[in-house]
Amino acid sequence: MLETLFNRLEEIYPKMVEIRRELHMNPELSFQEVQTPKYISKFLQELGLDVKTGVGGRGVVAKLTGGHPGKTVAIRADFDALPIQEQTDLPFQSKISGIMHACGHDAHTAIALGLAKVFTEKRDQLKGNIVFIHQHAEEVLPGGAKAMIEDGCLDGVDVIFATHMENDYPVGTIGYRSGYIMSCADEFYIEVLGKGGHAQAPHHTKDALVVGAQLVCNLQHIVSRRVNPLKSAVVSVGSFHSGTATNIVNGEAKITGEVRAFEEEIRTDLEKIIEEITSTTCQAARSTYTYTYLRGYPSTYNHPDITKLLVDSAKEVIDEKNIKELEPMMGAEDFAYYTQKIPGTYFFTGSANPEDEIVYPYHHPKFKIDERAILVASKVLAAATIQYLHGEK
Amino acid sequence: MLETLFNRLEEIYPKMVEIRRELHMNPELSFQEVQTPKYISKFLQELGLDVKTGVGGRGVVAKLTGGHPGKTVAIRADFDALPIQEQTDLPFQSKISGIMHACGHDAHTAIALGLAKVFTEKRDQLKGNIVFIHQHAEEVLPGGAKAMIEDGCLDGVDVIFATHMENDYPVGTIGYRSGYIMSCADEFYIEVLGKGGHAQAPHHTKDALVVGAQLVCNLQHIVSRRVNPLKSAVVSVGSFHSGTATNIVNGEAKITGEVRAFEEEIRTDLEKIIEEITSTTCQAARSTYTYTYLRGYPSTYNHPDITKLLVDSAKEVIDEKNIKELEPMMGAEDFAYYTQKIPGTYFFTGSANPEDEIVYPYHHPKFKIDERAILVASKVLAAATIQYLHGEK
Amino acid sequence: MLETLFNRLEEIYPKMVEIRRELHMNPELSFQEVQTPKYISKFLQELGLDVKTGVGGRGVVAKLTGGHPGKTVAIRADFDALPIQEQTDLPFQSKISGIMHACGHDAHTAIALGLAKVFTEKRDQLKGNIVFIHQHAEEVLPGGAKAMIEDGCLDGVDVIFATHMENDYPVGTIGYRSGYIMSCADEFYIEVLGKGGHAQAPHHTKDALVVGAQLVCNLQHIVSRRVNPLKSAVVSVGSFHSGTATNIVNGEAKITGEVRAFEEEIRTDLEKIIEEITSTTCQAARSTYTYTYLRGYPSTYNHPDITKLLVDSAKEVIDEKNIKELEPMMGAEDFAYYTQKIPGTYFFTGSANPEDEIVYPYHHPKFKIDERAILVASKVLAAATIQYLHGEK
Amino acid sequence: MLETLFNRLEEIYPKMVEIRRELHMNPELSFQEVQTPKYISKFLQELGLDVKTGVGGRGVVAKLTGGHPGKTVAIRADFDALPIQEQTDLPFQSKISGIMHACGHDAHTAIALGLAKVFTEKRDQLKGNIVFIHQHAEEVLPGGAKAMIEDGCLDGVDVIFATHMENDYPVGTIGYRSGYIMSCADEFYIEVLGKGGHAQAPHHTKDALVVGAQLVCNLQHIVSRRVNPLKSAVVSVGSFHSGTATNIVNGEAKITGEVRAFEEEIRTDLEKIIEEITSTTCQAARSTYTYTYLRGYPSTYNHPDITKLLVDSAKEVIDEKNIKELEPMMGAEDFAYYTQKIPGTYFFTGSANPEDEIVYPYHHPKFKIDERAILVASKVLAAATIQYLHGEK
Repeated sequence: MLETLFNRLEEIYPKMVEIRRELHMNPELSFQEVQTPKYISKFLQELGLDVKTGVGGRGVVAKLTGGHPGKTVAIRADFDALPIQEQTDLPFQSKISGIMHACGHDAHTAIALGLAKVFTEKRDQLKGNIVFIHQHAEEVLPGGAKAMIEDGCLDGVDVIFATHMENDYPVGTIGYRSGYIMSCADEFYIEVLGKGGHAQAPHHTKDALVVGAQLVCNLQHIVSRRVNPLKSAVVSVGSFHSGTATNIVNGEAKITGEVRAFEEEIRTDLEKIIEEITSTTCQAARSTYTYTYLRGYPSTYNHPDITKLLVDSAKEVIDEKNIKELEPMMGAEDFAYYTQKIPGTYFFTGSANPEDEIVYPYHHPKFKIDERAILVASKVLAAATIQYLHGEK
Repeated sequence: MLETLFNRLEEIYPKMVEIRRELHMNPELSFQEVQTPKYISKFLQELGLDVKTGVGGRGVVAKLTGGHPGKTVAIRADFDALPIQEQTDLPFQSKISGIMHACGHDAHTAIALGLAKVFTEKRDQLKGNIVFIHQHAEEVLPGGAKAMIEDGCLDGVDVIFATHMENDYPVGTIGYRSGYIMSCADEFYIEVLGKGGHAQAPHHTKDALVVGAQLVCNLQHIVSRRVNPLKSAVVSVGSFHSGTATNIVNGEAKITGEVRAFEEEIRTDLEKIIEEITSTTCQAARSTYTYTYLRGYPSTYNHPDITKLLVDSAKEVIDEKNIKELEPMMGAEDFAYYTQKIPGTYFFTGSANPEDEIVYPYHHPKFKIDERAILVASKVLAAATIQYLHGEK
Repeated sequence: MLETLFNRLEEIYPKMVEIRRELHMNPELSFQEVQTPKYISKFLQELGLDVKTGVGGRGVVAKLTGGHPGKTVAIRADFDALPIQEQTDLPFQSKISGIMHACGHDAHTAIALGLAKVFTEKRDQLKGNIVFIHQHAEEVLPGGAKAMIEDGCLDGVDVIFATHMENDYPVGTIGYRSGYIMSCADEFYIEVLGKGGHAQAPHHTKDALVVGAQLVCNLQHIVSRRVNPLKSAVVSVGSFHSGTATNIVNGEAKITGEVRAFEEEIRTDLEKIIEEITSTTCQAARSTYTYTYLRGYPSTYNHPDITKLLVDSAKEVIDEKNIKELEPMMGAEDFAYYTQKIPGTYFFTGSANPEDEIVYPYHHPKFKIDERAILVASKVLAAATIQYLHGEK
Repeated sequence: MLETLFNRLEEIYPKMVEIRRELHMNPELSFQEVQTPKYISKFLQELGLDVKTGVGGRGVVAKLTGGHPGKTVAIRADFDALPIQEQTDLPFQSKISGIMHACGHDAHTAIALGLAKVFTEKRDQLKGNIVFIHQHAEEVLPGGAKAMIEDGCLDGVDVIFATHMENDYPVGTIGYRSGYIMSCADEFYIEVLGKGGHAQAPHHTKDALVVGAQLVCNLQHIVSRRVNPLKSAVVSVGSFHSGTATNIVNGEAKITGEVRAFEEEIRTDLEKIIEEITSTTCQAARSTYTYTYLRGYPSTYNHPDITKLLVDSAKEVIDEKNIKELEPMMGAEDFAYYTQKIPGTYFFTGSANPEDEIVYPYHHPKFKIDERAILVASKVLAAATIQYLHGEK
């Protein structure tokens, strides 16, 4: 069956490219998607699938029930764009000023729709079901995934797959990782509240700038002393602002920063330890503080068994040497929420092509992809789906 | 002779008040004084004195040669105003929007002109000479004093006196101090130059924000470990700015601050030590820096003998209990330059009167003075001048 | 062939136990081994093997040349003991006061000798060769491995295996890890050299104690800012000594610590960065320093292919569920030197048995092993050797 | 009358020298004085004075009631020696091994006894009274002064004088200071209590050594930020001890230090701030602490009026140019307790004579004095006493 699927994907490849370009020309920002979900649901409805719209807000979910009973696989594709002014030379550039599909979500959508088409054609032979999860708002907190899950998009789903275009690797390759593949990315906001005054009389002040500086130094002790050295963690201060004049002692300092970690337990520890250090550092100077810790997406965990299945399946599509194990990354993705609920795996599909200057990373105004990555990714996902449902390669 | 002088000062007190109010209504900013020096030189020329204008830029110097040979006393009065919008209820408020004599320099000028008038009347009996130094631009670096001295205003002068209105003390009092009465006030500007990058990869960056924080902490060791505990010093960081985002490691941090000390040796040490600490702190993180140290006015030193003479003379004017020894102050004044060259003393004349709400400190938009301070100050200066020149009380 | 080997190992198991107990009763300290290498070489010579003694000092190397040409496998066993007074209840306790085989090297030796015996019996059928590396002085820097390698013990060897008793796991299990399994362990020694004096005059001193404290704080920035957060590193200060009186400023502070990391590149960076931070921190206070960095054993790297082969082989011996992937450990072992030269793997053989109170960790005076671990380990090593040489399970 | 007194002092100078040498040969340690108070009380009783012994433990107090009513002056002389082995070449060296009058208390006693003798001779003409306070145990906390005061030695006393030999200045001079002349000297003892462990697992420890280092750094912020820059303060860490091995994280760090200040308010602040900083620094690492603050002698305050009277009186004895105003000193003296109760002044009497190698500071085994200082000091004290009681020079 897999070979038939592969052939059909090759045949409809031009259609997938067309879809991708259509979406590329009409990007929509996260939580503001209107035309994109309409376009997707129309396509899926025309296939005759059971389509739900407005899932978790703006998501679209279509279920393909196979001809034979079996398990259920979900394929997730995100569809929001970014507030970036496109600077490519493409004939199908964004028509919307200041908005651009600079993260490949147009391709992700095209892949899922292509798969929906070919799998629907083979519905009768299919053991089990496939759920196509078209997700809005991956780029902006709190993301669309969480709300879609709460709205039931994973109900009855046994396993989930997703991929992402990646220009760090050439087209024709994929990158996988078992276990944590991406970290969480949380933010913290601290105000040190002391008491201002004249530089000449420091003893009448509570120097918030100096307390802030001590705090930044004390925060360095977290990673060096408080975290298991075999685990990864980043506590990074991104901004520090205090004062406007040379001769004033400042009553306030504002500090912001970011936390990255993989294990939820470490993340929870860090949130608490940062506040403890803030509190005590301020207290030492009889100062007070405000502390806000914003949780971003959690870390993304790929289940080892499913990842192994994916890698095995990928060997049907590309040569083994083009399937690369990745180091964990300090990025963040709301796909994380799906694999907190059910097993699944998230992989990268190489989309670079230096000969055509397709080298810029995502979120860059010159970001492009080698569209053949769409075919690679769709075949790998097809293979993994069949292997999971049918137990065959 | 002193009694005659006192009587004449009392008689012309209304004139001094008139001068002060005239100047108060027509304030001019530092280094922009045009009408004020004209007004002063006209007054002095009408007394028949030898008047030089444009001294050191905009200063006015008049010499009164006594009928008998002797030493030479200088009396210095500054005449610039401040960029402050007056908020008093005075009938003779500033006519110039946004500019105000909020530091009493109008009164200082009136005192010196009144003294010029009465001493000129007694010229024949005078042993020695009196130089009236009307100085521009005390409020703004580099100040007028230095240039006036370089332009010769102290040539042939043996001793110098000056006073300042002070609302910390009631009218009818004066405050003196032998030795250092005011500190220097220098500024430093530091840029830490590291290498920016993503929060997730600190090892590819040189985190200037963290280096800046270490620097602020390290600077605290100067006063605690590097300065004689019996001496005063302040090293204060006034501003710290680095970064705009939570998830970026910053390649740059900007730090500014102030240094205050009395002894020139300590000041010179501090300038050097701050740079050494900056340099080494940056170097520890393989970062570089820029360092600018701006010298403000030096500390003001009152010669003990001259200060004692002033205090003795003041007893002829006010009761001993109203003559107060002051703690040194962490302010700065370009009178400092005069007593670096010749002996002299600088004292404060109480000008507060709580009953009339004359309580606001200088540089405050509601700053006022009890004008009777003009009479007190002029008498004290007259007495000190006579005692120095004639050796009598 | 494997089955025959397993049977023979079971048959000679009592002999291996006897060897182990004989060695246990006669422990010798690192670099002081005399009787142990004699005992080993006698045993190997009696098997008719080609035995070299005094290799790299006190090592013993025996080569078994198989009946058929092929590759060469090395099996390494260390044989030194520890300066610990045994506190077990064993009938075959150490006869040497204050010296004890508290790290299982007696068992390691028994395993290798047992393997030498059974493989020698099957020499004719053997494709390829086996080198038995009996190593002295694993416990004490610089270790015996380096000198033995320099003395040629790996000449002609293609792959190397070793195992270690481990009471963290029950007898009947093994623990493996692909890639780094143990970190390096280096030491640093720092003297801060300032200038002492009276507490009342800090400005005449260079306070080495305070500089030392700054240094300890600055060292925390290494792991937090200078090391890839996806990699492991420890920079730990183990001792800080300065001063004897409350009222003296100290001219000297002594600081020692330890560095642990896996990648050689990070280790080299850390050695350099610690000195840079020491140098600049001292310089900020116009102080100097001495710095000594002692390299301990490097990190131990297990080659993935060989580790996979080992795990596959182990499945012939014990159930898959008893073969556990380990986290990397922050220990150090001079086996590291072997796999710097040739592929190899190092694994742990579970030797605990709580029912018999065999729970104490190595280097503990009550350390014991469940001797059945000898049989498990010898079978796993036999299986891995055959699989490598014969390409069969 | 003063002239008569001066003449008599000159006449009995050999006797005073004899007393001093007698005491020098028979030194006794603080709180162990037996023969010295006996010697003193015998001398005073033979003069016919009203003598109390055992005052506040081992002190001797004698009251001379003048022939005419008036005020009461106290003269205080301390009489304890030091645990130092004398290394001088004097013919009248200490007879007691390991104990030495190396701080001039033998001379202080001789001066007071000489004054007792001559004043007793003039008792009839004396207006008012003189109390001779011979104090034990100045060298060792808690000192003898406090207990003697509690035992009534200042009852009815209006003013108190004391002097101290000082080899920083030549014989024939005295040094005075109005206001604070000596600081307090307090001690603090801190234990940081964390949790020890292996260097490889810092996250399972609470690293007391690192917390201690942070604490030492944080303490530097006290003088730089928390104390009025016009006031003096020293917070000095004298010792830091933690750890014995490179590869252990320490659960304990011991830190000791000293505090010096003049104003009691600042001292009280410092005691509190050091604990606050200790507490919060430990808390940031979830550690605890112990804190002991030992108050030494308070700062010694010389009342301005009495000091002026002393200086005026001294002009009757030595040339004005030999009367020097001193900088405040960071030493400590239990004379402080007397002037906390009543007005008084403490001055230094120059006792150096470089030609005779009398240059070593007190507490040095080669400490000697030029004995003519005894005459200078006794005359100055006589003059001050007469001027205070009789109101005449």
